Amino acid sequence: MTLWTARAAHRAWLDAEARRLVDFAAAADHPEHGFAWLDGSGAPLPEQGVHTWITCRVTHVAALAHLEGIPGASALADHGLRALAGPLRDPEHDGWFTALDSRGTVADSRKEAYQHAFVLLAAASATVAGRPGARELLDAAAAVIEQRFWEEETGRCRESWDAAWHADEPYRGANSNMHLVEAFLAAFDATGDRVWAERALRIAHFFVHEVAAPRDWRLPEHFTPDWQVVADYNTDDRAHPFRPYGVTVGHVLEWARLLVHVEAALPDPPSWLLADAEAMFAAAVARGWSVDGTEGFVYTLDYDDTPVVRSRMHWVVAEAISAAAVLGQRTGDERYEHWYRTWWDHAATYFVDTVQGSWHHELDPTLAPPPGGTWSGKPDVYHAYQATRLPLLPLAPSLAGALATVG
Amino acid sequence: MTLWTARAAHRAWLDAEARRLVDFAAAADHPEHGFAWLDGSGAPLPEQGVHTWITCRVTHVAALAHLEGIPGASALADHGLRALAGPLRDPEHDGWFTALDSRGTVADSRKEAYQHAFVLLAAASATVAGRPGARELLDAAAAVIEQRFWEEETGRCRESWDAAWHADEPYRGANSNMHLVEAFLAAFDATGDRVWAERALRIAHFFVHEVAAPRDWRLPEHFTPDWQVVADYNTDDRAHPFRPYGVTVGHVLEWARLLVHVEAALPDPPSWLLADAEAMFAAAVARGWSVDGTEGFVYTLDYDDTPVVRSRMHWVVAEAISAAAVLGQRTGDERYEHWYRTWWDHAATYFVDTVQGSWHHELDPTLAPPPGGTWSGKPDVYHAYQATRLPLLPLAPSLAGALATVG
Repeated sequence: MTLWTARAAHRAWLDAEARRLVDFAAAADHPEHGFAWLDGSGAPLPEQGVHTWITCRVTHVAALAHLEGIPGASALADHGLRALAGPLRDPEHDGWFTALDSRGTVADSRKEAYQHAFVLLAAASATVAGRPGARELLDAAAAVIEQRFWEEETGRCRESWDAAWHADEPYRGANSNMHLVEAFLAAFDATGDRVWAERALRIAHFFVHEVAAPRDWRLPEHFTPDWQVVADYNTDDRAHPFRPYGVTVGHVLEWARLLVHVEAALPDPPSWLLADAEAMFAAAVARGWSVDGTEGFVYTLDYDDTPVVRSRMHWVVAEAISAAAVLGQRTGDERYEHWYRTWWDHAATYFVDTVQGSWHHELDPTLAPPPGGTWSGKPDVYHAYQATRLPLLPLAPSLAGALATVG
Repeated sequence: MTLWTARAAHRAWLDAEARRLVDFAAAADHPEHGFAWLDGSGAPLPEQGVHTWITCRVTHVAALAHLEGIPGASALADHGLRALAGPLRDPEHDGWFTALDSRGTVADSRKEAYQHAFVLLAAASATVAGRPGARELLDAAAAVIEQRFWEEETGRCRESWDAAWHADEPYRGANSNMHLVEAFLAAFDATGDRVWAERALRIAHFFVHEVAAPRDWRLPEHFTPDWQVVADYNTDDRAHPFRPYGVTVGHVLEWARLLVHVEAALPDPPSWLLADAEAMFAAAVARGWSVDGTEGFVYTLDYDDTPVVRSRMHWVVAEAISAAAVLGQRTGDERYEHWYRTWWDHAATYFVDTVQGSWHHELDPTLAPPPGGTWSGKPDVYHAYQATRLPLLPLAPSLAGALATVG
């Protein structure tokens, strides 16, 4: 079987889609600071203000695009770095705000691990891309994370604090820790400092090997401050955009891929990493793909595998493609190629929006774009962009690291 | 001389043009069944109904695109296959109708060899692409062609029948037989069954080596049921879209290429195949290219080589490019490279429509797009798409076969 990634036309399609996504994100260039929330047509929504995670994702993507030789991307990355070194950073208590309002004043001053993970990721990618101020930002973010979020005794991270770091939230989450794994791996690639790879391994070991494995890979997302599972968290707000109830299929797929990146970061990786990665992937596909009568991934599952929120999210498909690409490369198992093709076909048929750009972010269970679902507009290019790059990159701890090694 | 096909930029241009054409064809996705006729802007014209040859051509192109790794193409191919297994197929007398009307009821119930050739081609390409139901469709189409059209005693095919196969048309045609050569070669690649290659050879031998050669390659298109040439056929409707009077320059070029594909399908090919291919090519160029004071191919010639219909058709340029690519690869003769470049320049300058998509299908003798010529709208991507793929593929009996072998 000739892999799609060995076909010139497929590689050219991926490159063209990557360019299309970067061009779409470039429109989010907020006049003063960072990147705006984009609506379905790619027009900025100033009233949405500036969200740190969006600014970081565009900065990260732009840094990777610059590494790849996409003219103009560096300006985007630098624009993002200035916002992260400027208005998005708390001059008084350090760390990064969660969001600014449309006038540029702080709208949400909480200090969240999730946002800090993306600051570190953006800074690391921009550092590998050689952008001015990136390494300083990386070191500053790393210091805040080490001091405020990282728990050396448990090997995991806290969730969030008030602006002045007085009280940390009585909640622990798999989602923020997952993105911290991603960010730590990028920090390792950018700095060569092994501690980041070891911390990534420790986080992954807890959430996947300790918590998900005994639950037959049904990864709980929500925990108490002493790391007990809170199975019924958000049972009354099951479609919460960041903390949905139950098992999040897209995260199980994302963890599956991240375990392979962790493996690539370690000189002597434990064997459970690949084994758990393949098991997580298989569980997510068996329980999440086309299980409710229509093609597509359901968003969340209950602990008995019944679909809970059946909306089809673009980032889940993007993560599935990325996981299939990475696991296919790692194992050579042709079943991953089958899924890789199936999900690119699915993405191209239903999500890729060739009329207004980027991807529809959310489709209803019948795969028709809903007027306004959990996700309104198209604020994100990071998941889709990575899905176009990972298939063409060698296995590495991070995309920036892989791009730096590619001839 | 560095061939254009050895240049990364040229290959990238061909890939981009292929993607552009597939995206254009995707809009023809008829709600219920098959693919619609597209107007100049790429909008479906439901009132034109569904034509079997268009549905087959899009299915064929989509199957090739899937083989190449173009996400979303498989959904198009599968859509076409469903129409070919459904409303376009005659449930009572078997075989395939020629067209449905806009309500999906049979508009033209005749059973034409031309349509059945494209059903077999589409099914064969979809079979190589591994699409569900494709092999069943291939076998069904092959059985009908063998039973109703193929004449074992003469080694050629009949032209058409009424729906119930009572009376076959008192006419034999080179055009339908040419496309049956193409379809047989694809069936050979898809099934490995040598009989299809041998039948392709027999058809080619009659039309080119027996009929065209003694006429110094002025291939007649129209014959009586006992295969006598009808030189004055349609002399009163000289611009007939499917059966024009005289010598059709584009077909002489298409036969030239098909002979090389036939050669590639045979373990011990007769030497006349390549010799006749080069002669047909040379004759078509000498008598058809830029012979009337303006650049471009005239559509038809009289038997004394005087241009008859001087409209410039897009498919003729596409076939010329494909023939030059294939013969250049087969012989290494740089003259073919000269023509390859000349005709891509010609196509890009006059036919490629970067504003509304795809290619202008017909230009008047001054190369200006006529308001409404023989071809209104842009129903076809097959000729142009193949012209972007063949130059990059190894010589093989069919495009699907070539794509299947490409590493």
